[in-house]
Amino acid sequence: MTLPSLARYLPILDWGRRYDRARFTGDAVAAVIVTIMLIPQSLAYALLAGLPPEAGIYASIVPILLYAVFGTSRSLAVGPVAVVSLMTAAAVGEVAASGTAGYAAAALTLALMSGAMLLALGLLRMGFLANFLSHPVIAGFIAASGILIAASQLRHVLGIEAGGHTLPEIAAGLIAHLPETNLATLALGVSATAFLFWVRKGLKPALRRIGLGPRMADIGAKTGPVLAIVATTLAVWFFDLGARGVAIVGAVPQSLPPLTLPALSPELVSQLLVPALLISVIGFVESISVAQTLAAKKRQRIDPDQELIGLGAANLGAAFSGGFPVTGGFARSVVNHDAGAETPAAGAFTALGLALAALFLTPLVHFLPKATLAATIIVAVLGLVDLSILKRAWAFSRADFAAVAVTMALTLTAGVETGVSAGVVTSILVHLYKTSRPHMAVVGRVPGTEHFRNVLRHAVETQPHVLALRVDESLYFPNARFLEDRLAAYAAEKPDLTDVVLMFPAVNEIDLSALESLEAINARLKEAGIRLHLSEVKGPVMDRLKRSHFLDEMTGEVFLSQHEAARRLAKTPPAAPEPARRSA
Amino acid sequence: MTLPSLARYLPILDWGRRYDRARFTGDAVAAVIVTIMLIPQSLAYALLAGLPPEAGIYASIVPILLYAVFGTSRSLAVGPVAVVSLMTAAAVGEVAASGTAGYAAAALTLALMSGAMLLALGLLRMGFLANFLSHPVIAGFIAASGILIAASQLRHVLGIEAGGHTLPEIAAGLIAHLPETNLATLALGVSATAFLFWVRKGLKPALRRIGLGPRMADIGAKTGPVLAIVATTLAVWFFDLGARGVAIVGAVPQSLPPLTLPALSPELVSQLLVPALLISVIGFVESISVAQTLAAKKRQRIDPDQELIGLGAANLGAAFSGGFPVTGGFARSVVNHDAGAETPAAGAFTALGLALAALFLTPLVHFLPKATLAATIIVAVLGLVDLSILKRAWAFSRADFAAVAVTMALTLTAGVETGVSAGVVTSILVHLYKTSRPHMAVVGRVPGTEHFRNVLRHAVETQPHVLALRVDESLYFPNARFLEDRLAAYAAEKPDLTDVVLMFPAVNEIDLSALESLEAINARLKEAGIRLHLSEVKGPVMDRLKRSHFLDEMTGEVFLSQHEAARRLAKTPPAAPEPARRSA
Repeated sequence: MTLPSLARYLPILDWGRRYDRARFTGDAVAAVIVTIMLIPQSLAYALLAGLPPEAGIYASIVPILLYAVFGTSRSLAVGPVAVVSLMTAAAVGEVAASGTAGYAAAALTLALMSGAMLLALGLLRMGFLANFLSHPVIAGFIAASGILIAASQLRHVLGIEAGGHTLPEIAAGLIAHLPETNLATLALGVSATAFLFWVRKGLKPALRRIGLGPRMADIGAKTGPVLAIVATTLAVWFFDLGARGVAIVGAVPQSLPPLTLPALSPELVSQLLVPALLISVIGFVESISVAQTLAAKKRQRIDPDQELIGLGAANLGAAFSGGFPVTGGFARSVVNHDAGAETPAAGAFTALGLALAALFLTPLVHFLPKATLAATIIVAVLGLVDLSILKRAWAFSRADFAAVAVTMALTLTAGVETGVSAGVVTSILVHLYKTSRPHMAVVGRVPGTEHFRNVLRHAVETQPHVLALRVDESLYFPNARFLEDRLAAYAAEKPDLTDVVLMFPAVNEIDLSALESLEAINARLKEAGIRLHLSEVKGPVMDRLKRSHFLDEMTGEVFLSQHEAARRLAKTPPAAPEPARRSA
Repeated sequence: MTLPSLARYLPILDWGRRYDRARFTGDAVAAVIVTIMLIPQSLAYALLAGLPPEAGIYASIVPILLYAVFGTSRSLAVGPVAVVSLMTAAAVGEVAASGTAGYAAAALTLALMSGAMLLALGLLRMGFLANFLSHPVIAGFIAASGILIAASQLRHVLGIEAGGHTLPEIAAGLIAHLPETNLATLALGVSATAFLFWVRKGLKPALRRIGLGPRMADIGAKTGPVLAIVATTLAVWFFDLGARGVAIVGAVPQSLPPLTLPALSPELVSQLLVPALLISVIGFVESISVAQTLAAKKRQRIDPDQELIGLGAANLGAAFSGGFPVTGGFARSVVNHDAGAETPAAGAFTALGLALAALFLTPLVHFLPKATLAATIIVAVLGLVDLSILKRAWAFSRADFAAVAVTMALTLTAGVETGVSAGVVTSILVHLYKTSRPHMAVVGRVPGTEHFRNVLRHAVETQPHVLALRVDESLYFPNARFLEDRLAAYAAEKPDLTDVVLMFPAVNEIDLSALESLEAINARLKEAGIRLHLSEVKGPVMDRLKRSHFLDEMTGEVFLSQHEAARRLAKTPPAAPEPARRSA
């Protein structure tokens, strides 16, 4: 393998050779800031995924390192994120009880399967598959997931035991256990939530007022959650709130990420197949849109297929080092980018920082109340809940609205997997429905020009014995018969018809169904004594038609332009007899 | 309800008022010929469906009458057909054993459900749903079904007991029971098959030679199977072959169609839901293509939604009169048409003929060997096995070939329902894949003209700071991100770029995903200091874009033509200072 082709799969060979002191400084500063931000976030997302807190830190170390080697984005920060953690909890919760060794092992299996799928899709260059998740479906899914996540964390703020993976289940659990609310937990949880909401809105202006530059104020506000962690941990320790029933993080092992082996029973693998696929696709789509947004700012290029390989490697890393499924996170990547990360080495330095934290700082979070972590999650995910997509979609088209509404309704009431699958199916069906009734216009000549326009919108000239029909859609199986029906109707209505011209400037493709429909149309029109012509056929469509016998069988001609068709099909006045002309 | 609107749902009100003696004669002659042809066919398809022989005749009487009232085709003949009978056997065989009362009741239920679905689709005007069954999928399915049907009938020709719904099962059954072959049955079966093949190829020329006109010779050849029936029945009676183990039709009740009530347990209904839907769709698609082919010859109009109502009524009729699922048959409809049927009254007269046969002729088929019926089926369905679709599809496009191959392979090896469902899914996935990577061309100006063509195919002029990209596909979710990736790549490659023009003459539609991609492209190009323009946007697409804020946010302009875009974006030479010009 030559170096250029190796560099395609190992982007590190490209940027690594140009690494220098200036880049090192930028990367190191970004790494310190991201590390401080990631410690509470990692603990919180582990809680959301139903795993012990250290799993969140482990899931941030090895995956970041592997992404630094294989990924193409200069600023993407990989690790646990809210939506993927929720999906992990939903999937693993189906096969094992939270808190058991089987649960943690199944989370590793999920990361392994997701990593393998991403890697396979990347090596097969099948990143386009992620496109079947349309923007409205993703937006609806993420908004609904945010609501689900926030609702699921309320139990930690209230200090009660309640479960559920859908909104009705969660609401029923909360209502049933509401009398058991722990007031000390509630006080801590509500204070932390209120403080964090203020951090989002008010800390940045406050930091600006005390003289920080806009970029530093922004970064300062992003690391604000650390303040809530420190304050509530101290409160629990000082007032001994653990004894009053406040749930705390407790003992966290002081260790580097352990080498772990995912469970691989055939039964488990088959149960996790669909969830792993959905997690892979959702994670990839989230990650690539963050990466592309940040890359565009520096005119850098993201290779979607190589990104699949990078994320695949990161997830395989998580599977063998005590983590769970990971992907590129929005908030952390933006902080990384804004703090001046120049290369993926920033990620490697962040991994180093987190490894040091895992070794030396874990005793400090012993008294950290789970309510604070829940508050961190609630405030973070409510930022994801953007219901304006419903309004936007409604205004733009009913079809897109249907896809969003189905995705949101089913995600909330039937769970994340059903929701996102139903969204994909709805958007495909809606597309097929729309293209199954293509826009077609009978056209006539705009007087004095060579232009042909819709007879219903313009005052145009038509010939009674010629029907010129412009087809505004590719012809393929869902709409092939529609054209047959329409032409059969026209032929039955117009007794004088002798020629039909199909105008194809907007027909980008013709499949075999459409070809056979055209053949049937040709044969039926022939039976009725009507000739079939085509005009303005595109190159690729013409190439395709030439691969069949249709053009030989067609009763009429293919005209380069509709103008030419109209001119040639005009009823020629009876020519003077040839001999007579010759003798003249 | 006024008469015109009532006439829409009751086409009989239209043709019934113009009925006269000439039409009556044409209809009556056609009815006699079709009746003679239908008697053996009805018995044979009942055998194929696993039902008693009289069910085939009953299934031809009431359905024909109801179709005559509600259908729009003047020549379609409704009744049991080969593929639908096979699908009935496969579906009902899953829920009951052949020959039991439960089996016959389940067949009635299937007809009822299929009728209700067709009626509902017709009343909701959702006939377009049938279009999702692409031509190649139907062709592949019918060819594979023909092979399956012929294979399943071999056991009757051999006189052995063997079952199976897939080719491997059927082959295994035949091989296992081959030693039990009944030689008398085999002799009858092989003779009948050979005779019927000769009828297809040789009888028509023979009839022409004895002086019949071409149309009568054709019709005579179609009624040829009656000769095989008469001869083998006489042979069984005369040589008492029943005692030698030749399976015969036996006692058939002499009766008009009985009033029957389909079984309606929730369990049965849910088990038959998918089969009923597939039977409805396949039956409708077969029927409508026959009806349209025949209608075109007389410039008549077929209304697909009204056809659904007609077929729905026919199936409901079958359910309550001892039948099983029916649809419009190809062979009988062609005979009906060619024999001179003028109106649906021909169908009513055929029903009368079959009712008389059910009352008076059934004792005559007592000694009819099942091997002859099997031979009738084999010869009829082998005419359906047209493997040329594989060759055609391969030559035309690999995508269509994939759909045909998947449909045929799975129909043969996993059964009719799996086969046709997999075919539909494959054709949808193939379409999504194709449109997910749309053709795009960087264009430049053909020197001296206003035409812009692909830079790779033509010697054209380009401007180094302008990228003009023609998009040859509607923009929607499967390809939205593809455009983002391509533009990001161009922007990264071309450092001098200041303007991107997307040329949209072939963009027939833009969905919300594509709109958001355009917004992301606009925002990212803006970050990189590049303006985004559009040119040659179609009316409906422009209307759609105006429903969003995109046009306000777009950094560039919308140009009516690419020529105008190029002219306006050309680097204008520095203008002479205004004051200087004024003073000149």
